[in-house]
Amino acid sequence: MILSEQMLLLARQAKAAARQLARLSTADKNAALLAMAEALEKERGGILEANALDLADGTSHGLASAMLDRLRLDDRRLSLMANGLREVASLPDPVGRVLDERVRPNGLKLQKVTSPIGVIVIIFESRPNVTADAAGLCFKSGNATILRGGKEALRSNEAVARVMTNALKRRFPHLPEHAIQVVLTPDRDAIKELLALTGYVTCASRGGGEGLIRAVAECSRVPVIKHYKGVCHVYVDGSADLKMAEEIVINAKCQRPGVCNAMETLLVDKAIAPVFLPAIARKLTALKVELRVDDTARELLRNHFPHLKSALEEDWYAEYLDLILAVRVVDDIEAAIDHISRYGSAHSDCIVTRDGPRARKFLAEVDSAAVYWNASTRFTDGGEFGMGAEIGISTDKIGARGPMGLEELTTYKWLGFGNGQIRT
Amino acid sequence: MILSEQMLLLARQAKAAARQLARLSTADKNAALLAMAEALEKERGGILEANALDLADGTSHGLASAMLDRLRLDDRRLSLMANGLREVASLPDPVGRVLDERVRPNGLKLQKVTSPIGVIVIIFESRPNVTADAAGLCFKSGNATILRGGKEALRSNEAVARVMTNALKRRFPHLPEHAIQVVLTPDRDAIKELLALTGYVTCASRGGGEGLIRAVAECSRVPVIKHYKGVCHVYVDGSADLKMAEEIVINAKCQRPGVCNAMETLLVDKAIAPVFLPAIARKLTALKVELRVDDTARELLRNHFPHLKSALEEDWYAEYLDLILAVRVVDDIEAAIDHISRYGSAHSDCIVTRDGPRARKFLAEVDSAAVYWNASTRFTDGGEFGMGAEIGISTDKIGARGPMGLEELTTYKWLGFGNGQIRT
Repeated sequence: MILSEQMLLLARQAKAAARQLARLSTADKNAALLAMAEALEKERGGILEANALDLADGTSHGLASAMLDRLRLDDRRLSLMANGLREVASLPDPVGRVLDERVRPNGLKLQKVTSPIGVIVIIFESRPNVTADAAGLCFKSGNATILRGGKEALRSNEAVARVMTNALKRRFPHLPEHAIQVVLTPDRDAIKELLALTGYVTCASRGGGEGLIRAVAECSRVPVIKHYKGVCHVYVDGSADLKMAEEIVINAKCQRPGVCNAMETLLVDKAIAPVFLPAIARKLTALKVELRVDDTARELLRNHFPHLKSALEEDWYAEYLDLILAVRVVDDIEAAIDHISRYGSAHSDCIVTRDGPRARKFLAEVDSAAVYWNASTRFTDGGEFGMGAEIGISTDKIGARGPMGLEELTTYKWLGFGNGQIRT
Repeated sequence: MILSEQMLLLARQAKAAARQLARLSTADKNAALLAMAEALEKERGGILEANALDLADGTSHGLASAMLDRLRLDDRRLSLMANGLREVASLPDPVGRVLDERVRPNGLKLQKVTSPIGVIVIIFESRPNVTADAAGLCFKSGNATILRGGKEALRSNEAVARVMTNALKRRFPHLPEHAIQVVLTPDRDAIKELLALTGYVTCASRGGGEGLIRAVAECSRVPVIKHYKGVCHVYVDGSADLKMAEEIVINAKCQRPGVCNAMETLLVDKAIAPVFLPAIARKLTALKVELRVDDTARELLRNHFPHLKSALEEDWYAEYLDLILAVRVVDDIEAAIDHISRYGSAHSDCIVTRDGPRARKFLAEVDSAAVYWNASTRFTDGGEFGMGAEIGISTDKIGARGPMGLEELTTYKWLGFGNGQIRT
């Protein structure tokens, strides 16, 4: 079968499954998720075998050890995946919620209710645990999923999806077997083919490297919810509690530097920079953070840190994902917002201040998925937000923004209940 | 200035205006809208002059009289445009609504609040009144607009936008003058250039012909909310109140056949087809509706209507926008839903029945923007839904679905209120 036929078949099967999924009861969906969780634990042998083959190939192809670690499954990770599915089963059903209800003067009752999107294509990189998480969230929200993970994890992803769909079939023979599908070809053109099927594929989403996200967005004719980079800022205002500011800055940079909600640029109000900068620079340097500073900061830090790197224009755009921090002294809150608006990625930004009006200005004018007043940017996360589980962090504005949990995997439709109303 | 530079300038100016619009108070936005409405009435001279030039050009280029009529402005239409703006001013501000609020165990308060999208590009065809409607809705929702109407209406659109922005400047000299902009080149490549500016343009939306919508969607790298065709169905179930069914069918087809929420295909349950079809065919034929029927319907109608056209495969996909109706007899509700799922455009569909479970099945499984039980498809409309005003009917699922009023022109962001929370 040629590539485009394979993709058309996947899309058709997914569309048929989506119609069946839309009419499943909450109880059936939850029972199916629990059966899938149990199968992931009981049938771990086959999954670990497939994973061992992926790992052996990865090793012989010279994959970096960090990549191999992300790829590796073991008993603990499989249990985490199973528990993730159990957690999804325990969450409220996002489908059928009444968002709005109105009765018109002619007696027509209108209800705006949440409904599944239909078919969701998830494109992600090499972590095979995403297969179970994403498939579980899509299943609970009544969507058929087509998963396209990294080619390094092809056998692992296929094994995880097979165990889940077999469990589904055993528990509920009437349930659609194509609810969860995996793209089995490593061919990169498969993504393009899949996303060209406008009529079938409704939404694509992923977490991973910047280049692939751009490529997906550019070849797609369907809406793409992008999980793009996080160039997150902390702005320490002139009237900040400096002790609090230190704790937030250190947390946002150092607690887990390799994730998208970690701070990449520190903005410091010039009013407190002479006091705050030397103190925070000492602490960050002690924590092995490399600073890249603008001229004003360099001047203020010259005595204690004579060899600091200068920040270049490209540093303001950088998502280091590492113990590196760009530092800039700004004239005021206006300049801080200007900087974030120009260089930020609209992910997560924070102001530390005791001044209410300035905080409210920052919250209103910084146009990011999450804007914090006196709290670390690291909180932008489905679990921390109380969503229970997430499929990623959307940096888009249309469709879903910020952490994407179950609710963000639904759309809505209008239901009209009449007794013969016609328009005059 | 070359085309791409012009478009970049428009986009930059719009982005700067968007930041200013985001911080306007509701009172200021409403006062500005009222000033714009007044100016449209007081400065009608300039607008009508520009419109006369467009009309003269259209006449000499042989525009069809229906097109000329859509293009024509007069005192009445200008008053309607002005009153449209006054109505938008009277509606609640869609920005700053708290959609969700939660306090996490660590004391971090999270609020999900509506916020403007940013820059909205509206691409539409030759009706210049859309300029005022769309710009007013975008302004009230805190978005900067870039309007690209049909080239036949270029001068009219420019005049309307100029009167509105001048009124804005006079009333509020501090308000952003680039809040409302019109693409002044008739060059079709301008759309492509504009939509390629991913970093600046956030959402594009339009009403109009199918070909242009597809072209826009294909060249756009930004989310496009499409107002696509309406292939709307009425399914008359075996247990329908046949009198009610007749009224709904006639209303959905004949009350205004040229609009997207008019019925294009009638599906009749075979259980009542022998009774219902001859009766409704007589009434529709008397109202000058041309029927295109499947074999079963032809057989049932043979005695009274020996010369009916046969429906071809393409008729099931057709948006006639005219007094033409495709008619099909279906085995049951399942077959009706199958037909709608295969041929429909996910706009508006209706079931006429007295059977509650069947109605609920139809409402749950027909995946359209609006699904009606015992009411005409013609109700899918911002005004009829009580939204007060609309920018069009979205047939997409991501972003907005169905009538797009003020709320549908916003996105949301998460605000986090802390007192020093850090992640552990």
